[in-house]
Amino acid sequence: MAGTAERMASNQKQVAISEFFEKNKHFLGFDSLPRSLITAVKEAVDNSLDACEEARILPEIKIQITKLDGKKDIIELRSEDNGPGIPKKSIEKVFGQLLFGSRFHAIRQSRGQQGIGITGVVMYCQLTTGRKTHVRSKIATETSAAIVDIGLDTRKNKATKSGEGRELWELPDGTLKEHGLEITAQMKAKYQRGRQSVYQYLRMTSIVNPHADITFIDPDGETHHWPRVTERLPRKVESIKPHPHGIHLGTLQRMCTESTDSRMTVFLRNNFSGVSSRAAKELLAAAEIEEKAKPKLLKADHYRALLEAFQGERMLNNKPVKLLNPPTNCLSPIEELLIKKGLSKTIDSRYVTTMTRAPTVTQGNPYQVEVGLIFGDGMAADKPVEVLRFANRVPLMYQQGGCLLTKAIESVDWRQYGLDQAGGRGVPKGPAAILVHLASTNVQFTSEAKEALADNAEVIDEVRKALLEMGRGLRKHLEKKKKMAKTQDKFELVNDIIPAIAEKAAAILDRPVPNLSGSITRIMGAVISEATTVWNKETKQTDVTITLFNYTTRARSYTLLASWPERAGATMVKNEQGGRKEASGVWAWKLDTLEPGQTITFTYSLTGLERGDWTDTDLFYRGSQEVIGASKMDEKLLEEIRRQEAAANGEDEPADDEPVDDGEEAEPTAAQGSEINADPPAKTGQQTLMGFGGDE
Amino acid sequence: MAGTAERMASNQKQVAISEFFEKNKHFLGFDSLPRSLITAVKEAVDNSLDACEEARILPEIKIQITKLDGKKDIIELRSEDNGPGIPKKSIEKVFGQLLFGSRFHAIRQSRGQQGIGITGVVMYCQLTTGRKTHVRSKIATETSAAIVDIGLDTRKNKATKSGEGRELWELPDGTLKEHGLEITAQMKAKYQRGRQSVYQYLRMTSIVNPHADITFIDPDGETHHWPRVTERLPRKVESIKPHPHGIHLGTLQRMCTESTDSRMTVFLRNNFSGVSSRAAKELLAAAEIEEKAKPKLLKADHYRALLEAFQGERMLNNKPVKLLNPPTNCLSPIEELLIKKGLSKTIDSRYVTTMTRAPTVTQGNPYQVEVGLIFGDGMAADKPVEVLRFANRVPLMYQQGGCLLTKAIESVDWRQYGLDQAGGRGVPKGPAAILVHLASTNVQFTSEAKEALADNAEVIDEVRKALLEMGRGLRKHLEKKKKMAKTQDKFELVNDIIPAIAEKAAAILDRPVPNLSGSITRIMGAVISEATTVWNKETKQTDVTITLFNYTTRARSYTLLASWPERAGATMVKNEQGGRKEASGVWAWKLDTLEPGQTITFTYSLTGLERGDWTDTDLFYRGSQEVIGASKMDEKLLEEIRRQEAAANGEDEPADDEPVDDGEEAEPTAAQGSEINADPPAKTGQQTLMGFGGDE
Repeated sequence: MAGTAERMASNQKQVAISEFFEKNKHFLGFDSLPRSLITAVKEAVDNSLDACEEARILPEIKIQITKLDGKKDIIELRSEDNGPGIPKKSIEKVFGQLLFGSRFHAIRQSRGQQGIGITGVVMYCQLTTGRKTHVRSKIATETSAAIVDIGLDTRKNKATKSGEGRELWELPDGTLKEHGLEITAQMKAKYQRGRQSVYQYLRMTSIVNPHADITFIDPDGETHHWPRVTERLPRKVESIKPHPHGIHLGTLQRMCTESTDSRMTVFLRNNFSGVSSRAAKELLAAAEIEEKAKPKLLKADHYRALLEAFQGERMLNNKPVKLLNPPTNCLSPIEELLIKKGLSKTIDSRYVTTMTRAPTVTQGNPYQVEVGLIFGDGMAADKPVEVLRFANRVPLMYQQGGCLLTKAIESVDWRQYGLDQAGGRGVPKGPAAILVHLASTNVQFTSEAKEALADNAEVIDEVRKALLEMGRGLRKHLEKKKKMAKTQDKFELVNDIIPAIAEKAAAILDRPVPNLSGSITRIMGAVISEATTVWNKETKQTDVTITLFNYTTRARSYTLLASWPERAGATMVKNEQGGRKEASGVWAWKLDTLEPGQTITFTYSLTGLERGDWTDTDLFYRGSQEVIGASKMDEKLLEEIRRQEAAANGEDEPADDEPVDDGEEAEPTAAQGSEINADPPAKTGQQTLMGFGGDE
Repeated sequence: MAGTAERMASNQKQVAISEFFEKNKHFLGFDSLPRSLITAVKEAVDNSLDACEEARILPEIKIQITKLDGKKDIIELRSEDNGPGIPKKSIEKVFGQLLFGSRFHAIRQSRGQQGIGITGVVMYCQLTTGRKTHVRSKIATETSAAIVDIGLDTRKNKATKSGEGRELWELPDGTLKEHGLEITAQMKAKYQRGRQSVYQYLRMTSIVNPHADITFIDPDGETHHWPRVTERLPRKVESIKPHPHGIHLGTLQRMCTESTDSRMTVFLRNNFSGVSSRAAKELLAAAEIEEKAKPKLLKADHYRALLEAFQGERMLNNKPVKLLNPPTNCLSPIEELLIKKGLSKTIDSRYVTTMTRAPTVTQGNPYQVEVGLIFGDGMAADKPVEVLRFANRVPLMYQQGGCLLTKAIESVDWRQYGLDQAGGRGVPKGPAAILVHLASTNVQFTSEAKEALADNAEVIDEVRKALLEMGRGLRKHLEKKKKMAKTQDKFELVNDIIPAIAEKAAAILDRPVPNLSGSITRIMGAVISEATTVWNKETKQTDVTITLFNYTTRARSYTLLASWPERAGATMVKNEQGGRKEASGVWAWKLDTLEPGQTITFTYSLTGLERGDWTDTDLFYRGSQEVIGASKMDEKLLEEIRRQEAAANGEDEPADDEPVDDGEEAEPTAAQGSEINADPPAKTGQQTLMGFGGDE
């Protein structure tokens, strides 16, 4: 026994982070040959999109995959972008050093955060082929591009370099590249097709990055192109300070110890979001800390007391200190119309609905959920629906079963929304695809491979709410379709068979054929509406035709209302029947009388849209007799739309350039968010309307 | 645009590994409050078991959990072991520095490998409560124990210390502790009961570590004790060298560059397992590298050629160079009888079967699969079976769905083995629990939280094979049970009703009751056997009684055979009928004649076993008429047992202390493994017999 402990201890040594990830390369997504290739593409594309977004450039990305040696599974990946490029002296750190990056401490939405991804690719290439990764980088302020081959000394987590130099980066058209980055990497990998493939990854990336232009040249030399569908760059995201609700004791302690602020009031206002001057004073009072106390000199009990005040456990006058929500300009949702655009470009189908929830907060981190659903022909009806998962605009392709987003889908009873689902749990079956996107300043993955989101009860609940709301839309759509089909059947029956019988009877009796329109009307006994929404290639407008038939025996009077994408910037033209705006995105026509058997038609066109932006117009009515094909107007909802519209004061566009000061002595404003509240009723109102306007 | 790239690059900096894991603490298993506690217990227990195993100490582990502040979820965890302890100067590195350890580069089976686990606990405690972790360590060569409070400076990945000192570690009985380690940590966590709990974790740990004595004092002060069920320590594992089949090009390159060997033949024999002198020469010839070439001076093309020779892509005389399998003394399986012991102690049930596969190799890493199954009363018949997953003797409690071991279970069509399973896929339903253990020198988890195994087609196939074999055993058991029950029913019917009818008839007719034994025999028309195996408290022996009834009209002649745990060290006593050994674990009695209506009984006892070791004796027969309750002897299998027995030459116990030289100029021996072969027919032979002997 003697000496065992000493002997065992003498073998211990420090391992470099790079040795750790080399041994555990499967943590980074390099576990099988097909997946390794997807991971490499993903890291390159994520970096390009992030860099372009930060530099406010509309991204153009080109991926080329070449089989160097098919038998030995050696593949070359070339990735090129038009981003800002990387200055020469930074290249080796970005590509040859793990955990080196700019986004680790920043609280804002971005694809990459850890500074691991692309260095992992360099490491994997070196490990499997022994080769360095070739980098070419051109920045705007220099004439020539920098070139260098980068490897990784995993024992030291340092780059190894060779072939350094400069060259003119000539484009195929003979001009010089202004700025951009090119990576050429050789690795052991396998190219394959199907659900988990580079093709599919890029296709899904294009759905959630409609501002990106992506070209892919596959190993057979075939070119696939996903063009940009919007010129609008994603909203610029600002870094925010941490919110007191998400702070751990140890972090608070470190922040205090490292602080150079002269007094606690200043410290709280400078280092946290959501803390106004008033709130800072109240927090300190609740924690029984002096306002002029120096943060550096705080004691253990103080930290604890302050944390309790943050979390509302220590109160002031029996009330927790109110804090503002963190600002949400650190997030960049895709927004409904753009998701829809991406979806309908990519998957050709009939019913597409999307839904963007208002931003909210978990553990001090702002996040936002967006969902989409495509339903209809061309998809297998007896298979599980396709699940499209995304986090911060990055497609997640592996570990579907272990992902929070999948669990949220599985927790919904889809049977009530018209999809098959054994036992009301699990991924439903049906001709549909469900898209879920989580935008967050701190996406918690289950591992660095970034393929599945870790459990979080609040986030799962938020996703569920979005799905339920979207599900209700699907149910309405299916009910409407069924009702229309039934009426259609009846109408055809009545219109075809009764005249045939009448004709036959008349012939037999040798009497004239009677006029049947009265009878048909009586048998149908319904008012029917129909709207067609069609893209007009010639005029580049979306033409809408709305028809109303009165198949009842009495004169009817209605107000007919239609949804239109006003908030998305469309303009209504050629509307000859006039009418009036009822609310943002809702137009109304008042009809005094619609006689029995009478038909009335409204037509108008929408400008300012692109093909696929608007494919379905919703109809509503006010009146006592039901209108088949339209919904009775929900006046409360309309009221809510008007209220929000008034509040927004025309601020439809996100304020890109206005710096938002977080919560300075403040009544909450729209930009700063309202007081934290578990589930404010108005939270999803605006989103609902967008959904309303667009999808049902 | 100008300057954007420079501005963006200027924000980049290096992040410490500790900052990375602090931010991503959920990667380490600290994602929710209940799980954080289990993770902390797990890391402490893993370390204790590993240290005891390495120091060849029978572990005694005590875990105590106390609620310090129930409302704020502050919990204290105290963990104490009787391991070798840690020398004072090493404590701060072991507990306060991530990626510091002794096992990272060692190729052998161990629970911990990365040097992250326990430091992660220290980090989590500090982050959530601001408190340091108290460590008390006593090593055998010192009189007093070292004490210190350890924290972690995450910016630098360095320990922070306070309260350093020495004290006498007095035990409750007044004596001084000889050696051991105690950790007291305070953390934000939640204690809960159920399937994912500390209790369940420790219970499962005791199943696969039958040599450990584990005590748990829960927050209510209740003590749970899982006593040691074997005094035999797990086989000592030796570190092995990497096998050429698992080497990447980059690794080979680094090994060569860092080598000080004078020539390639020496380099290959010194640094790899499975490479004999002959093989080294052949590999070099195939790769066209000179035998006396200096490894340090090899060129890129040489590495590639050598790797191709390793992988059999470059051949010598049109044949790939044959390499020995890596030695498997780096693995420590639990072994069937011990798993069974653990299982039957923990889960009280009727049918328990286990199966240990022979060690094999994937990507150069030796690994071994063990499975177990419990079936019977006391478990819910309409619920999915309980899945018990283990890797290197550590229970896996989370992410069941995403784990390779679960996927292997789901891939088996359990319907053919008597369990319910919708569509023949997925976790089956039935009153059963399935245990799967993977022992490996390189367990590939999906993340550092070490809760699910990453995909590997070879491993999944190996697990599947083990499960299929075990499933066949279950089917036989169920068939036998059904047949016995049917015969039993018939026998009761015949024995009760026919005499009753006869009696009644005789009474009515006023005639004597006829002798019916002939009729009963004719109606039964079967030979029936029955074996009971009972633990005798008085004698501490296992008593076996075997009965054979001849219910046919003819005299029969048989050889009756019974399984018994000879290989597990049992001795057969009080066997008055004599008989003879047929093969290892198989005893036989020859019966010349068994007359119609005759019954014969054999009894014997087994010594050298403990309660629960042996609960079911299998019967076999040789003879023309079927014996209900026994199986016809499979002579080929018997032959195979004898052949293996002869080959083993009495080497039943693993050779603990014999150092195994890997592959020096060699014909393969048992310890070194045979030439690599995809699926050698004899591979599972020996295991089959153990299962045979023990379970059916």
